[in-house]
Amino acid sequence: MPTVRARRTGAALGALALTALLVATAAGTAGALPSPSPDQFGGAARHAAQTRISSDLTSSLRDGKVDNVILLIGDGMGDSEITIARDYLVGAGGTLAGIDALPATGQYTTYSLYKDVPYAGKPDYVPDSAATGTAWATGTKTYDNAISVDIHGDPHATLLELAKANGYKTGDVSTAEIQDATPAVQVAHVAQRSCFGPDSASCGPDALVNGGAGSISEQLLDTRPDVTLGGGAATFAQTAKAGDWEGMTLLEQAEERGYQLPTDAASLAAVTVADQDQPVLGLFAPGNLPTRFAPSVATVGGSGGAPETCQANPDYLGAGLTLADLTSKAISLLDAKQSKGFFLQVEGASIDKRDHAADACGQIGETQDLDEAVKVALDFAKKDGHTLVIVTADHAHSSQIVDGATPGLGTTLLTVEGSPLRISYGTAAAGGSQQHTGSQLRIAAYGPWAYQVVGLSDQTDTFFTIAKAMRLDPRALSR
Amino acid sequence: MPTVRARRTGAALGALALTALLVATAAGTAGALPSPSPDQFGGAARHAAQTRISSDLTSSLRDGKVDNVILLIGDGMGDSEITIARDYLVGAGGTLAGIDALPATGQYTTYSLYKDVPYAGKPDYVPDSAATGTAWATGTKTYDNAISVDIHGDPHATLLELAKANGYKTGDVSTAEIQDATPAVQVAHVAQRSCFGPDSASCGPDALVNGGAGSISEQLLDTRPDVTLGGGAATFAQTAKAGDWEGMTLLEQAEERGYQLPTDAASLAAVTVADQDQPVLGLFAPGNLPTRFAPSVATVGGSGGAPETCQANPDYLGAGLTLADLTSKAISLLDAKQSKGFFLQVEGASIDKRDHAADACGQIGETQDLDEAVKVALDFAKKDGHTLVIVTADHAHSSQIVDGATPGLGTTLLTVEGSPLRISYGTAAAGGSQQHTGSQLRIAAYGPWAYQVVGLSDQTDTFFTIAKAMRLDPRALSR
Repeated sequence: MPTVRARRTGAALGALALTALLVATAAGTAGALPSPSPDQFGGAARHAAQTRISSDLTSSLRDGKVDNVILLIGDGMGDSEITIARDYLVGAGGTLAGIDALPATGQYTTYSLYKDVPYAGKPDYVPDSAATGTAWATGTKTYDNAISVDIHGDPHATLLELAKANGYKTGDVSTAEIQDATPAVQVAHVAQRSCFGPDSASCGPDALVNGGAGSISEQLLDTRPDVTLGGGAATFAQTAKAGDWEGMTLLEQAEERGYQLPTDAASLAAVTVADQDQPVLGLFAPGNLPTRFAPSVATVGGSGGAPETCQANPDYLGAGLTLADLTSKAISLLDAKQSKGFFLQVEGASIDKRDHAADACGQIGETQDLDEAVKVALDFAKKDGHTLVIVTADHAHSSQIVDGATPGLGTTLLTVEGSPLRISYGTAAAGGSQQHTGSQLRIAAYGPWAYQVVGLSDQTDTFFTIAKAMRLDPRALSR
Repeated sequence: MPTVRARRTGAALGALALTALLVATAAGTAGALPSPSPDQFGGAARHAAQTRISSDLTSSLRDGKVDNVILLIGDGMGDSEITIARDYLVGAGGTLAGIDALPATGQYTTYSLYKDVPYAGKPDYVPDSAATGTAWATGTKTYDNAISVDIHGDPHATLLELAKANGYKTGDVSTAEIQDATPAVQVAHVAQRSCFGPDSASCGPDALVNGGAGSISEQLLDTRPDVTLGGGAATFAQTAKAGDWEGMTLLEQAEERGYQLPTDAASLAAVTVADQDQPVLGLFAPGNLPTRFAPSVATVGGSGGAPETCQANPDYLGAGLTLADLTSKAISLLDAKQSKGFFLQVEGASIDKRDHAADACGQIGETQDLDEAVKVALDFAKKDGHTLVIVTADHAHSSQIVDGATPGLGTTLLTVEGSPLRISYGTAAAGGSQQHTGSQLRIAAYGPWAYQVVGLSDQTDTFFTIAKAMRLDPRALSR
């Protein structure tokens, strides 16, 4: 028989392991104990939040009645971007009040398809926002740049269009120009995402003047969501070149067609109803809405530098026009007692745009804005009981949390916890645009049907989850 | 009243939208339809797999009886690394047979803590494998380099130690040297992860000769798991410098203490029992086990280059000694009819090591090996009914899927789908070691208690999930 020596460390371990926490765990009562500091046994665990989430998940595991769906998109908000925002704003052990509070979680794939030879029809592993938005808006994979048309050029009905045809109220909210890819995929069908208005040279056959359905802005006016809020006023100063409103600016056309047109916090606050007689088109900036934080400057090797903190952006629109405020206003206008329910898409657009610019503070502030909007949606959903909230992104992006200086651009920030957060952008040189990346993404949800996002799904599955939850019948479109 | 013009695109959309798939969706029968090609409406959705996963999730949503826990770790296997392997091996729309098949999914945080001023006790947002392994092995956050000791230098009982003390059989499997951080955290307590053997200068006070508990290898022999399989034979040729086995090599000591010592596929196949009388210590390489694929070479701008394919590594151990084979053998030895159950940790180690080396093929092959091991674990768990399988990683890593050339190192691979997969490593210059990254990670599970991984948790929560599922009582350690 072999000699089995007594454990050298047994006594020390036994003493340490005999903490109240694990004994309570063995007894099944751990949830009731206070949490020690993060350097202690169990001090960093998220027990309490997990228990709550498990309970919410249980109630999500049913195909319950869904009246409303709120789909919130963080453009470019990969797991790295979420973690960067959490670390900076609330600490690595902290909890983002909206994004981190969703009980059902999973991953989804985001690839697009090539339209042209030599790879026509094959996967493009790094998609853009047009193809990814089309995927969840229509259930159809397509090429980068496509707004709700497929690689063969055919248009596909969108969730917003289907919801409207099925008697739901609809809304489309973004911090970007409202013609930007993510808001556009719900309301328009064009071959090139840059076909913003009648002056856009890229419209080609989609232009009214060429017999098409018109630019994104013109199709938006046709699709006529009950509520549309965002930036992009500049394009509405362009003049229609053909059709019933030839010679009028798009803004004049909108007014002629009954749209309410708030332009600032006061005029938006004054809006009390939004329906097909008087839909709301709120455009609060000529282009994209200004970001919450002023840009940080990334430098070569900056992820090895001394920590800075983010500064407020003096141009930020703020009270009444934050993404949370726009979301709250949209919900209050869409949640009409006598109606069937609503479909609302909300986009935090500039996580992506600031990531492209290697602007860590910019992307963090936009993630914070989206988080607050998610909180608004969740609060409504919890009160309502028949609302499905889905939070995800369109594609992953460049920013990475690193340990020190990298050869690329970087920034070091001092977090709320007082630790250095080192952020690197390694996919473009200084002055270039950082690239999207192809990683699978987090998708999370709350409410009936939320469990559908658990596991591995594809971006196109999100269309079917929402279509099924809302019982959208495509035959309503041709009635 | 405003003029509301008829929808321009209504007819075209109506016709297209009237596909069998969405009508069936509206009727609630979509699951039964065949899937069209990926460029068609619904062609990329994962309906069927999702339905199966939702069903598995429902059965996971209970605190059912757990006899066995199998924890599989992909070292450095962030969402980007998973996506790279999927895209290359089975295509973006494909499914990894193990990793992608887990029904319960979530994200977890991985930060470690600084031990020293000026940040002592504060979060280190980019952890190493020692701190992260300690987090799930002991439920305690610690500093980089620490093997199951905290920032104050105190040891904490590990899941493997607790499981053993509570009457479970135990196993520790890795493709790394068995002294490497991830396997080490379950069996040893040292201040510096490089304290592999009695010759390691870094052992300091942990060395037997200095009155400590000994190097990782010596503590492994003391901890005495029933099954230990991996690399790291070289260290076992070192000679003990103090204690009961002074003057003997560690291998001689192991033999003296009753260990069975298989060294190749044939001798491992011959092992039929593993228990405390005759535990198994299989060391199949002097250092880390050779990877499945030969290294690919990353070059500056290589993510913009022409696509290549991965080549087999002639040194790969292969049949009988793949990670799936080692996992299968460990399970068969631990799943003894008369025993209470078992705890088994399995690591795919070189996803991390090849990511450090900017070796895309290396990391893909190691992810494939882990995926096959997960499949083995899942197949056992499905048959057994009382096994919790958890699959996750320790920390995120550098590799990113990009759209074209980056300023950093890169490689372009031709995937099984015939599309170019462009991979960039931007956190170190040529010749340097690519850095870990700080993103939250996927954690996924199957079986009773699996639902605990859904939502946002911390790496230390994994300790409590397993400890609760196995009803581990810390008081057993001091009996």
